[in-house]
Amino acid sequence: MSEFDIIRDVFAPLTKDAPGAFNLADDAALLEARDLVVTKDLLVAGVHFLAKDPLDLVARKLIRANLSDLAAKGAKPIGYFLGCVWPQNVKRASIELFARGLAEDQEHFRIALYGGDTTMHTAKAAPLTLSATFFGAPPKQGMTARSGASLGDDLYVSGTIGDAGLGLMALRKEFKFTTVDKASLSGRYHLPEPRLTLGAAIAGLATAAIDVSDGLIADAGHLARANGLRAEIDAVATPRSQGAAYWVAAQQNRWKALASLAGFGDDYEILFAAPPAMRRSVVMAAKASRTEVSRIGSLTRGDGVLFLDESGAPILVPETGYDHFRK
Amino acid sequence: MSEFDIIRDVFAPLTKDAPGAFNLADDAALLEARDLVVTKDLLVAGVHFLAKDPLDLVARKLIRANLSDLAAKGAKPIGYFLGCVWPQNVKRASIELFARGLAEDQEHFRIALYGGDTTMHTAKAAPLTLSATFFGAPPKQGMTARSGASLGDDLYVSGTIGDAGLGLMALRKEFKFTTVDKASLSGRYHLPEPRLTLGAAIAGLATAAIDVSDGLIADAGHLARANGLRAEIDAVATPRSQGAAYWVAAQQNRWKALASLAGFGDDYEILFAAPPAMRRSVVMAAKASRTEVSRIGSLTRGDGVLFLDESGAPILVPETGYDHFRK
Repeated sequence: MSEFDIIRDVFAPLTKDAPGAFNLADDAALLEARDLVVTKDLLVAGVHFLAKDPLDLVARKLIRANLSDLAAKGAKPIGYFLGCVWPQNVKRASIELFARGLAEDQEHFRIALYGGDTTMHTAKAAPLTLSATFFGAPPKQGMTARSGASLGDDLYVSGTIGDAGLGLMALRKEFKFTTVDKASLSGRYHLPEPRLTLGAAIAGLATAAIDVSDGLIADAGHLARANGLRAEIDAVATPRSQGAAYWVAAQQNRWKALASLAGFGDDYEILFAAPPAMRRSVVMAAKASRTEVSRIGSLTRGDGVLFLDESGAPILVPETGYDHFRK
Repeated sequence: MSEFDIIRDVFAPLTKDAPGAFNLADDAALLEARDLVVTKDLLVAGVHFLAKDPLDLVARKLIRANLSDLAAKGAKPIGYFLGCVWPQNVKRASIELFARGLAEDQEHFRIALYGGDTTMHTAKAAPLTLSATFFGAPPKQGMTARSGASLGDDLYVSGTIGDAGLGLMALRKEFKFTTVDKASLSGRYHLPEPRLTLGAAIAGLATAAIDVSDGLIADAGHLARANGLRAEIDAVATPRSQGAAYWVAAQQNRWKALASLAGFGDDYEILFAAPPAMRRSVVMAAKASRTEVSRIGSLTRGDGVLFLDESGAPILVPETGYDHFRK
């Protein structure tokens, strides 16, 4: 198996003849003049996915985690650059399975591979490490930034919160879910759904947005900080799936359980702010994009995040989201 | 040490307030409308650099390896996206040292950091893995592609060949060089010099170009294949540094030694083709960019690479360059 054969046979077809990708047979790609929204995410075996996860799913998670960043910015995806560091003794069949996952999601999201680099670890047992740089076209209203919100803006979040974390728990058999819920939750862990249609629909309407990947509370903190405000979130209003509701009901402390859901990562939903005067427009944008959107709080004077129970008292939040560097 | 502190304190200053980088406080960067030449390279500890290499040098090698790709395309560097997967228990001081290396070369090459991702391995002893996506502006004559050369075009290469490989040999004490040569050769291994000025000077003049990173013979093969031709290289004409000449003189078989130099990787020189009618222009471009350029052969009918001795007979080449997937 040669590096150049792999690039020519397995990866070059993924360029889909995109002009400027040169069929991966050049040192660089050429992107034509236009504004570009660009994002980069890493996925590492053992950190962001399980070492035993099927590689086609890993490929699709890599694509979707990156597209989620573009979605929050309202951007329309165009393509990506891919870096792969394979474990020693990787089999060609594994690389091909990975590429099939890429091909499937490329088709689904109408994107193409533009370039990259592929290499192999020499250290024993070093994990598969994936890096992708995605680019897209900003919406005509301009990219939705993380800052730009005003005091009193409402906070919204798409979909449901905490499902990927529970999915991981289900896969690790740390909690017994029903078969249906287990399938749905682990699906959320393996295969996030980037909210591209919603992101485009709220461009120009949302005053600030962020994709929820570190956990709702942590990402609300990032958004609040970028706007010099505090995020107040109504715990009961945070949207929950059927599986999450089942899990919460089984926990001793309901508030602690809700805080846990809001502390898990990997949701890949969009958290955004919009003025109260725009509530009807947000509902319409959600409807038009066929995406559930919940109003969960607002931006107030102060800093940090308050996660409030039904009496409006702050719940002590045990974790503030996933941080790779915190022990 | 928190991931977000590291990003804010150590990496955000590297954006140098580049508009669109949002001080690394957004999910994505916004690049303004223009043609972009984009390239991506990975560096992995144990594969592309030694685990004990000082991290500021590793940072600078990461920048330079990527800039070398842009140089071969004639592009003017603008900025980059950075992905870092740190080993477990990395110290903040190590990350800061790495960032100082980035800052130094950013200053030198007038580029800025636009975004990225930083995370940490959970697997024990997993190596530092770095990924960078660099972008630049194409030359006004258009990006120099790998294809575009004609039968009979001359082949040129910049600088000297094989020094980084000998530098690694010197660092591993596999050959005893003079102190001066050892310093110079190991410098070539640690700190390549991307040929940006030359790359810009030969844009519109070179009919095809590639950066020499896999080894002169291997990269000549890539260039030849992209043009549907054969590369014939005159072994004696391949440029050698003083240290390389000393090493060749100490080898039993002079031709085998020359082939080894042309098989080593990490040269980060530019190999390019130009019509014989342009010889004077090439000399002038080399002079204007203060870069040594040697005419080493030509493109002929056929395929592959012929590495020829002084009688014009092909030397049996033991290796065809570095391939991460070949055992």
